Amino acid sequence: MSANSAVVIRSLIRDVPDFPKPGVVFKDITPLLAHPAGLSTVTAAFAARLRAHAPEAIVAVESRGFLFGAPLAAALGLPLIIVRKPGKLPRATESISFALEYGTDSLHLHADAIRPGGRYAIIDDVLATGGTAEAVAALITRLGGTVAAQAFLIELGFLGGRSRLGAVPVESLEIYA
Amino acid sequence: MSANSAVVIRSLIRDVPDFPKPGVVFKDITPLLAHPAGLSTVTAAFAARLRAHAPEAIVAVESRGFLFGAPLAAALGLPLIIVRKPGKLPRATESISFALEYGTDSLHLHADAIRPGGRYAIIDDVLATGGTAEAVAALITRLGGTVAAQAFLIELGFLGGRSRLGAVPVESLEIYA
Repeated sequence: MSANSAVVIRSLIRDVPDFPKPGVVFKDITPLLAHPAGLSTVTAAFAARLRAHAPEAIVAVESRGFLFGAPLAAALGLPLIIVRKPGKLPRATESISFALEYGTDSLHLHADAIRPGGRYAIIDDVLATGGTAEAVAALITRLGGTVAAQAFLIELGFLGGRSRLGAVPVESLEIYA
Repeated sequence: MSANSAVVIRSLIRDVPDFPKPGVVFKDITPLLAHPAGLSTVTAAFAARLRAHAPEAIVAVESRGFLFGAPLAAALGLPLIIVRKPGKLPRATESISFALEYGTDSLHLHADAIRPGGRYAIIDDVLATGGTAEAVAALITRLGGTVAAQAFLIELGFLGGRSRLGAVPVESLEIYA
């Protein structure tokens, strides 16, 4: 995509107050998805940031991470690996439970999806408190892989999630201080 | 993508017996996702099939529909609209409850995502009994849109889901009779 057709990503992320609960301002990505140049701009930006970290595959987190991870994997010509909620992956998995911003959750990864010694880039839509990102990194590490980078469309900097990700490079396209 | 680099899609879909319950053979798409030429072949095949139906946007169904809908929307340069599970979309939605192969579910669509008179292509990974596909079509129709086509990576023909989709064109890349 040319720079001329690039759009201002942040202009396509809509604030929705009091969702999912009072006092929280939700970042709605549906306007970005509905704007073809928005999705292509985001994909190109992720690709440019992640190439430098030389991942051998993209690990996308269910479910909004799928929206950005799939076009990114296609753009980079890399394998796409999916991290899913319980009961969704049909073969033997590694799993982890963790605290979320709004409760608890657990995530699964096919145990044979990670190559010991391999380098993986994790992608999700939002870095909030960092619980999900930390959990996905732990899954990859337990299976012998290295997390080459963590990539997010949106980082809610005021929640401090980045501090839970250690020395792993964090690539956030839009940071809300 | 050139024909030379195309892969046999079906060879990348793995049968997993007795998942999610005894007697069911689950179609595991993770090998396809992990094969870069697999995802690009699928995207190119969807794009070729759907261009003929002239949709103005792609409607992807949470969550595996996101994996194929996002690269497809990018390839066609079309808006991507997402259908989600309850409690996920932050603004006013149209919703529908329906019977699934393994229980019941409900799905939501932002009410302003569909333009009355607009033509939409629905994409999901699997057409099984057709309950999800029929429900998504009903959401679009209620909001004044027209379903230009229903597209699936996999159609489990023996479950007869196609018969619930009326006169809408069904584009399935791999049909298991």
